[in-house]
Amino acid sequence: MIERLFTNALLPDGTATDLAVTDGRFVAIEPDIVADEAVPRIDLGGRLVLPAFVDGHIHLDKSFLGEPWQPHRPAASLRGRLAVEKALLAGVRPAAERADALIAQAARLGTVAMRSHVDVDATTGLSHLHAVMSAREKWRGIVDIELVAFPQAGILTCPGTADILDAAIREGAEVVGGIDPESMDGDSEDHLDVVFGIAERRGAKIDIHLHEAGLPGIAQLHRIAARTRALGLGGRVAVSHAYALGDVDEPALDAVARALADAGVAIMTNAPGDRAFPPILRLREHGVRLFAGNDNIRDAWWPYGNGDMLQRAMLIGYRSGFYSDEDLGVALTMATTEAAKALGLEGRGLEQGAQASFVALPASCGAAAVAAPPAERLVFRHGIGLKLPD
Amino acid sequence: MIERLFTNALLPDGTATDLAVTDGRFVAIEPDIVADEAVPRIDLGGRLVLPAFVDGHIHLDKSFLGEPWQPHRPAASLRGRLAVEKALLAGVRPAAERADALIAQAARLGTVAMRSHVDVDATTGLSHLHAVMSAREKWRGIVDIELVAFPQAGILTCPGTADILDAAIREGAEVVGGIDPESMDGDSEDHLDVVFGIAERRGAKIDIHLHEAGLPGIAQLHRIAARTRALGLGGRVAVSHAYALGDVDEPALDAVARALADAGVAIMTNAPGDRAFPPILRLREHGVRLFAGNDNIRDAWWPYGNGDMLQRAMLIGYRSGFYSDEDLGVALTMATTEAAKALGLEGRGLEQGAQASFVALPASCGAAAVAAPPAERLVFRHGIGLKLPD
Repeated sequence: MIERLFTNALLPDGTATDLAVTDGRFVAIEPDIVADEAVPRIDLGGRLVLPAFVDGHIHLDKSFLGEPWQPHRPAASLRGRLAVEKALLAGVRPAAERADALIAQAARLGTVAMRSHVDVDATTGLSHLHAVMSAREKWRGIVDIELVAFPQAGILTCPGTADILDAAIREGAEVVGGIDPESMDGDSEDHLDVVFGIAERRGAKIDIHLHEAGLPGIAQLHRIAARTRALGLGGRVAVSHAYALGDVDEPALDAVARALADAGVAIMTNAPGDRAFPPILRLREHGVRLFAGNDNIRDAWWPYGNGDMLQRAMLIGYRSGFYSDEDLGVALTMATTEAAKALGLEGRGLEQGAQASFVALPASCGAAAVAAPPAERLVFRHGIGLKLPD
Repeated sequence: MIERLFTNALLPDGTATDLAVTDGRFVAIEPDIVADEAVPRIDLGGRLVLPAFVDGHIHLDKSFLGEPWQPHRPAASLRGRLAVEKALLAGVRPAAERADALIAQAARLGTVAMRSHVDVDATTGLSHLHAVMSAREKWRGIVDIELVAFPQAGILTCPGTADILDAAIREGAEVVGGIDPESMDGDSEDHLDVVFGIAERRGAKIDIHLHEAGLPGIAQLHRIAARTRALGLGGRVAVSHAYALGDVDEPALDAVARALADAGVAIMTNAPGDRAFPPILRLREHGVRLFAGNDNIRDAWWPYGNGDMLQRAMLIGYRSGFYSDEDLGVALTMATTEAAKALGLEGRGLEQGAQASFVALPASCGAAAVAAPPAERLVFRHGIGLKLPD
């Protein structure tokens, strides 16, 4: 029994297909599907269909999207940047409204799930978390939003933050965050004790911002991998950025790649513009899961970004020297099915039985869409056209 | 006397303005312009206006735009790449039609002038040039197209090419090209003798592809600067890519920057994704003119690109770590007024007396438009809305 039939579409490999949907799931994806006359048909007009996008790393509480333009202000240090951010955020609409604007833009561009880091520290308390949770509530059923309690200002250097992180998990964040254990907090083991301690105690997942460069950053990844293995948290731990993976020679890279793969630690990258970042294909050869996120979008940290995960896939390919269809396809999976898996979302992708959440757009194949993302998008969630909340 | 009045616009600095046009030129750009009741008014709806885009480096004869998707084929060497390109081009529509499709897309996105390199060698002869010249003719008055006779396969290593280059200039190319004098042709001085010889003899401009890395590439730039000075060709010589400028230490960089600035040699970059490229701000401090081009667009060389110079400005900023409004503005000028100057186009930009060619788009200021280029564009040439040729 077919409830809705999408016709005249192209699969990412460029072949023609129909897509049949029942109960919000694909029941068939093949050419020339036969259905009862009464079944509603949606002609996709020869458009390409892609799995709906998953943004593996966003900061919903930080963006100025929808606000008057905020020129970027220089800052001499990370602490200076945090002060600039606090000053700028004091002059814009509340986080719940800004988060809502960004979710809406991402949804229109085809994102149906995201992991948002939310600043949580002893001075901010849970105010950002509560704001983003209220935005999340508004979008429930349209965009799945997972929240990371993110200690942007450090844990050890910002006394009281450990308790607030724990409280954030109790109140509804699914993931406990961390940041640069050594360079930010001065004590890797103590920092990781807090993060992994909360994860173990509360059954939370982990996603740690790691900007630490070179071999110190690699050492950090080994520590995280070892703790993940020891606690049996494979598949529930991610490291965001992990720039160090782009800094070191092949023996060091291969060793840490094996450790990450064995432990089940995933790596998130946004393909930064002006510094080295993880070598995607090499890490995948070792079995490491790589996924993509937009990271900062027009905020106090930088002015770029529009919430589009297809453009993010393009930037990942552009920065990685991905030219072949196969490699461009890797960038696309990082913004779709691999990101879904990293977030623990089951049954995504263009396959029978999967959630019928997809994007239709004017392109001839997936590689073409990544290489030059078209602006036009038709977004379907559970087989139904995107409806924005009131 | 005002012929047309554009109202309700924003300038790149975000301030409100009207724009008055007579005889295709701006006669006033200021708020609240008073005009006779009979003057036609175009309400720009609060859109940002930018100078129309100038693409300083494109390959109109190479693109597969509008063709069925051509998966990228690997090639082990430059010669291998040239063979792949020849094979792929044999299976697509003639160059005149493909060039036309690419010009049309660029025009819709706001480009009103471009410099296209066109392959010219002893085996291809002038066939590509004639094809692109016919496309150029079709677009005359809408998009100004300057052509470079480009010896893609080398000059010395491809006997007969020197004569063909000379013939190309006689037949209508304005610029004589060159490519990697040492690594491609094995003799820098002989290669440059041909290029500068034709330029001097025919009064042509020069634009040399230089991919040579490190100090050999820097030495090449010194040679080009010295010849430019000696022949008094300042302002008429450009080097495209000049990757070496991104490879070397500051003393070497500063020395060659001074030589380029003194000689009047401009540098074109497309901000490649996965290798070092010229440090824009540092070179500008020395007085070097930097300008932007899209380079290859969906062709045998790589799959990326859509002909949009605003996206190119974004990529230049993204790759250069440009965050401030001032720096984002630099990226924008490289795709507009600086590119115009590099091509010898006078009177461009948003100022009284300049050609009234501009793009209106939904953004609050120039920095915002560069950081996240909007898809929607209204394009005006000489104050008239873009009309595509029949």
